[in-house]
Amino acid sequence: MKHIKTQFINVQDVADIIKQIGIENVLQGMSDYIKSDYLQWQNFDKCPRTANHSADGVIELMPISNKEMFSFKYVNGHPKNNQYNLPTVMAFGVLADVATGFPILLSELTLTTALRTASMSALAAKVLARNNCKSMAIIGNGAQSEFQALAFYYQLGIKELHLYDIDSNATDKLIKNLSFTDINMHRHSSIHEAVKGVDIITTITADKTNATIITSDMIEPGMHINGVGGDCPGKTELHEDVLRNASVFVEYEPQTRIEGDLQQLPKDFPVTEIWEVLNETVKGRCSDYRITVFDSVGFALEDYSALRYLRDISIKLNIVNEISLIPSLKDPKDLYKLI
Amino acid sequence: MKHIKTQFINVQDVADIIKQIGIENVLQGMSDYIKSDYLQWQNFDKCPRTANHSADGVIELMPISNKEMFSFKYVNGHPKNNQYNLPTVMAFGVLADVATGFPILLSELTLTTALRTASMSALAAKVLARNNCKSMAIIGNGAQSEFQALAFYYQLGIKELHLYDIDSNATDKLIKNLSFTDINMHRHSSIHEAVKGVDIITTITADKTNATIITSDMIEPGMHINGVGGDCPGKTELHEDVLRNASVFVEYEPQTRIEGDLQQLPKDFPVTEIWEVLNETVKGRCSDYRITVFDSVGFALEDYSALRYLRDISIKLNIVNEISLIPSLKDPKDLYKLI
Repeated sequence: MKHIKTQFINVQDVADIIKQIGIENVLQGMSDYIKSDYLQWQNFDKCPRTANHSADGVIELMPISNKEMFSFKYVNGHPKNNQYNLPTVMAFGVLADVATGFPILLSELTLTTALRTASMSALAAKVLARNNCKSMAIIGNGAQSEFQALAFYYQLGIKELHLYDIDSNATDKLIKNLSFTDINMHRHSSIHEAVKGVDIITTITADKTNATIITSDMIEPGMHINGVGGDCPGKTELHEDVLRNASVFVEYEPQTRIEGDLQQLPKDFPVTEIWEVLNETVKGRCSDYRITVFDSVGFALEDYSALRYLRDISIKLNIVNEISLIPSLKDPKDLYKLI
Repeated sequence: MKHIKTQFINVQDVADIIKQIGIENVLQGMSDYIKSDYLQWQNFDKCPRTANHSADGVIELMPISNKEMFSFKYVNGHPKNNQYNLPTVMAFGVLADVATGFPILLSELTLTTALRTASMSALAAKVLARNNCKSMAIIGNGAQSEFQALAFYYQLGIKELHLYDIDSNATDKLIKNLSFTDINMHRHSSIHEAVKGVDIITTITADKTNATIITSDMIEPGMHINGVGGDCPGKTELHEDVLRNASVFVEYEPQTRIEGDLQQLPKDFPVTEIWEVLNETVKGRCSDYRITVFDSVGFALEDYSALRYLRDISIKLNIVNEISLIPSLKDPKDLYKLI
């Protein structure tokens, strides 16, 4: 007998999972699942996400599959949503059984996208940044910033944060939310000031514009740049010279060429896919002086990993609700009986 | 204030809608919504669906949008699912607000796909088949066959059905389910026998093979062929000569060239998109002797229309449940507060 009920995980369930086992373990668990799936890179059927662009934002579908499982995420990006009291990024996703097509899990991914993005950023930084990094600048202190800070705190030991946002209330919120940790948080009045001397720069801004938040003059030898917010055609954060002077790493090249900060550079600008670093066929960092950029746009594989993690941990913790998304039929050829 | 709750329609809700207003009105309502959206063809942002193929089936995502709304359908096709007591085709879908990306409706589409496919078939036949059609053959008497029969009964007045399936239990089921109508149903032991002399042939089989269920020698002048089951690369129903000798109509040419019976023909074989017939810029049928084929694969627009119809009618009938798919936040920049 195959699955006949779809599991449903809502945001309260994810919050409960975090409450029960701690955010440190959730972030680490997701990093582990993501790494383990990137090590299976060749076994996935991959494509760039579909994107429906409109004046105010974008709605995307991100499918991926291997021989066992299919997953997709629905996600939007609408920088002006805050005026409607809605998150800029909202998401949900599904994990399905490839053998039958049955959707075995429907899950919220608004909160989870923040978790998995931070887990991916930390995973990449571990193989790209210098050893013994101590400080990080976070440019953009919005909805995802705490998760980035915590993933780097727990997984890389970053205890010194330099913060900047055009909205100082956002920085207040970040400092307040992380006051339970022993992270030293410094507020800055310019990006220049915030990034000065740090080991890692994380950019995670929301504006859908071709911005150049980070310029070459801000970059010091050996820095690692975790570029998270340049993730859509027409939405960039790094000046092209920052990329030109660095070793650039991406998740899935065909998608990043369209969506990443990489969209500013010629099609033949060399980049390395992160799975090759994770499986140790390519070296991530070749010297302590080299500048590395993780031009992250978010790839379907990471949502697949996050969904898989949520399913496993929710079953383990017995946080299991169901939703009647697919009708159960006595005779599967007799759909008409339903009415 | 924008939407903050996602409506959820499950299969019981769809069954309740049908119970309250009758399947005739639901099929007609969907045909009307589909027609009205096809008349707005130029305003939609369209793409062929994404398809993840595996040994036993396919999982597809079908997105579409206009300036106001985005929708997608998740749908699988797994011909061997009956052995697991699961439907061959299972589906669900979402309607979202383009201005904010908020998913305003999550709905079951397993039952609804059968309804909207039948509504589309009847809508196309009304502009492609001869006037005063009386009889139809249905080849393949599985899950969707009753819906096809009823759409043609109510919308074209087809009261004479000629039935064939390799599984005679499927035909039994169809005859039993439609015994409440005054349709004359005839069971046949071969496709040849079933299609002899009919006005319309509907093919709706499930096998994922390059089948040639209908060959040229079965076709008589003036017939209309409603080809529904040839909807996937490597899954066809009509011999290529049937197409060559007919005027062929499709939903969305780029998708049908990949998935339809049309996949057998050269890229330059002429076809007409059905919206051009519906808006009367192109004539559907040029004589009573011409053979017409609607090479239907199912297009995202029809699911958009079906979701829009379900939303409107469910609100009208006050069948409105909600699901907490997107977290509601006091401060949308403070996602962290959720945990």
